[in-house]
Amino acid sequence: MFKIITKDKNSGARCGVLKTAHGEVRTPVFMPVGTHGAVKALCPEELEDCGTQIILSNTYHLYLRPGEKIIKKAGGLHKFISWKKPILTDSGGYQVFSLATLRQVENRGVEFQSHIDGSRHFLTPEKVMEIQFDLASDIVMPLDECLPYPVEKPYAARSLERTTDWAKRSKKHFESLYQKSKINNRQLLFGIVQGSTYPDLRREGALRLLEINFDGYCLGGLSVGEPLSVAYDIIEATVEYLDKKKPRYLMGVGMPEDLLESVERGIDLFDCVLPTRNGRNGGAFTNYGKINLRNAKFLSDYNPIETGCNCYTCRNFSCAYLRHLFSVKEMLASKLVSLHNIHFYANLMKNIRAAIQKNEFMQFKKDFLTKYR
Amino acid sequence: MFKIITKDKNSGARCGVLKTAHGEVRTPVFMPVGTHGAVKALCPEELEDCGTQIILSNTYHLYLRPGEKIIKKAGGLHKFISWKKPILTDSGGYQVFSLATLRQVENRGVEFQSHIDGSRHFLTPEKVMEIQFDLASDIVMPLDECLPYPVEKPYAARSLERTTDWAKRSKKHFESLYQKSKINNRQLLFGIVQGSTYPDLRREGALRLLEINFDGYCLGGLSVGEPLSVAYDIIEATVEYLDKKKPRYLMGVGMPEDLLESVERGIDLFDCVLPTRNGRNGGAFTNYGKINLRNAKFLSDYNPIETGCNCYTCRNFSCAYLRHLFSVKEMLASKLVSLHNIHFYANLMKNIRAAIQKNEFMQFKKDFLTKYR
Repeated sequence: MFKIITKDKNSGARCGVLKTAHGEVRTPVFMPVGTHGAVKALCPEELEDCGTQIILSNTYHLYLRPGEKIIKKAGGLHKFISWKKPILTDSGGYQVFSLATLRQVENRGVEFQSHIDGSRHFLTPEKVMEIQFDLASDIVMPLDECLPYPVEKPYAARSLERTTDWAKRSKKHFESLYQKSKINNRQLLFGIVQGSTYPDLRREGALRLLEINFDGYCLGGLSVGEPLSVAYDIIEATVEYLDKKKPRYLMGVGMPEDLLESVERGIDLFDCVLPTRNGRNGGAFTNYGKINLRNAKFLSDYNPIETGCNCYTCRNFSCAYLRHLFSVKEMLASKLVSLHNIHFYANLMKNIRAAIQKNEFMQFKKDFLTKYR
Repeated sequence: MFKIITKDKNSGARCGVLKTAHGEVRTPVFMPVGTHGAVKALCPEELEDCGTQIILSNTYHLYLRPGEKIIKKAGGLHKFISWKKPILTDSGGYQVFSLATLRQVENRGVEFQSHIDGSRHFLTPEKVMEIQFDLASDIVMPLDECLPYPVEKPYAARSLERTTDWAKRSKKHFESLYQKSKINNRQLLFGIVQGSTYPDLRREGALRLLEINFDGYCLGGLSVGEPLSVAYDIIEATVEYLDKKKPRYLMGVGMPEDLLESVERGIDLFDCVLPTRNGRNGGAFTNYGKINLRNAKFLSDYNPIETGCNCYTCRNFSCAYLRHLFSVKEMLASKLVSLHNIHFYANLMKNIRAAIQKNEFMQFKKDFLTKYR
């Protein structure tokens, strides 16, 4: 399922190929986020043109609307949203613990009220496996408890215990779903390491997930407010104990500089709303840093966002036009800058992979950050 | 500039080719509206894929934001918005009389306050020619006074006098701009017939514009609240007096049935916000009438908007998915349905042209309306 092609000699960075039911993914890879089954403002054709290999979609949101049964009846999430390449769905844990209200967590599962209409729901690890089985995404996640930052160690330890127990139940139920259905093209099931900012808890989480044996491992509960240096330390402390032959996915991260730091520490997969969220607000990523196209200085700047960029937006439109579209509130603005940003991220990851394969990752990182900062 | 290819034997319908500085337009044609220099939610590539031959853009809006000088510096509106085919710009008259506030019209021109920031502006027929000269659109319009419905005949008569005087001044100033600049590739200047719902005023307006001699003639001040039958009568009463060799443009109309009725009466060009405005709100045009994709009945309707439709939306997405996107407020919904609607309108006009060329327009109209209603 995962094959490592090159290991960088001077860092933990590596290039790999992840095989899924909907094709191969070259890692390290960045996954644009399609919360409701659509990467905001972009259609599948545009995503592919940007070089997108795999997208992420949110189980919590799709479970609430339109409901996994509607998507199952459509023939699965791929058919429903007309995306032919791989899809990873998250567990919903993060959303239950950040969006939903009146949350009550117990060992059996978690009860909550929908952030949309206040309706009551009860999710168990088993139910979350079933939802993602119906969605028929390529990579699925077990329900986990996502902690805020900071959190007291005793609570983090009890929570880790629960998340680990849920992971075990998830794996068991996942297997039974496939035994019943006799479907050959299996989803990949990743385990999520929690443990807040406590290295010993992270280590324990990692080791106990290894026993259960997942197809890949995620680092959850980071990028929730902790200092960057703490996050990097935790990544190092966790990666050390994970199965080196399995893919490692750092959830919800991040800025271009975070991607480089994390690739250096051995991370293979990323997802983040930053390129699309920034795009909608006028923020465009370039090799010379982030710019804001709403700024008055772009009024008569007839250059593209980045000279030499090969994306549809940069090939056709100037900063002056994009600034105009934002100032008159045309939704085309959001789409054009999101498209550029998704292309920028895909291109960055492609360059990272090329650098690793030439054993030049650390030099690439240095050069990139010198220009970018 | 305008060549009539076929005249329908059983109606006033005709097929023509309109030559502009940015290529030919086959008529009858529908122009999607790009108010701020962008057809809402769609990029130029998508518009072309839908079969769009020409778009309309609003002088009033572009004059206020970003300002015609910004667009001139970009190399004209085509370069600014990256649209290579013809563009028609309106005169701003309609917007000054419907959007702006504290309007004061006098013979010299019209003073108003911007609907955006309340800033004061004074537009004269000469200024409006200069703005459109800077925009470098292909077809331009002279400033006119756009009347509400209903309006007393004495006021309508005085207003027509003014609009006619403005038309004369516009033509004169237009010629002088070209004499000064020595630009070869001239814009086309159309005259606008006003006269409210009074056939004799319309006739007078038409005859006096003919004396000035324009490249084409517009019917303005319709679709402003008058009954449909009145509008059709006015179209007939006006078309009768226009130069039969020149293109006729019915401004701001309309629904598919209006297009058919007007083509029958000899109209060659149309523009309207309906396909995009409806698209953004979930309204989709089909050969069996308009449907609203927000409707709960589409929850698990896995058919496209229209079976057999060749647009990107229908080739890739179901009503169930589109309904979901509207219900979760994804802007992709607006784009996908706008795209379908623009394709529907372009396709309708293409079918109308084919029917006229086969002398089957009246049968086509009957068949279309039987299904559509």
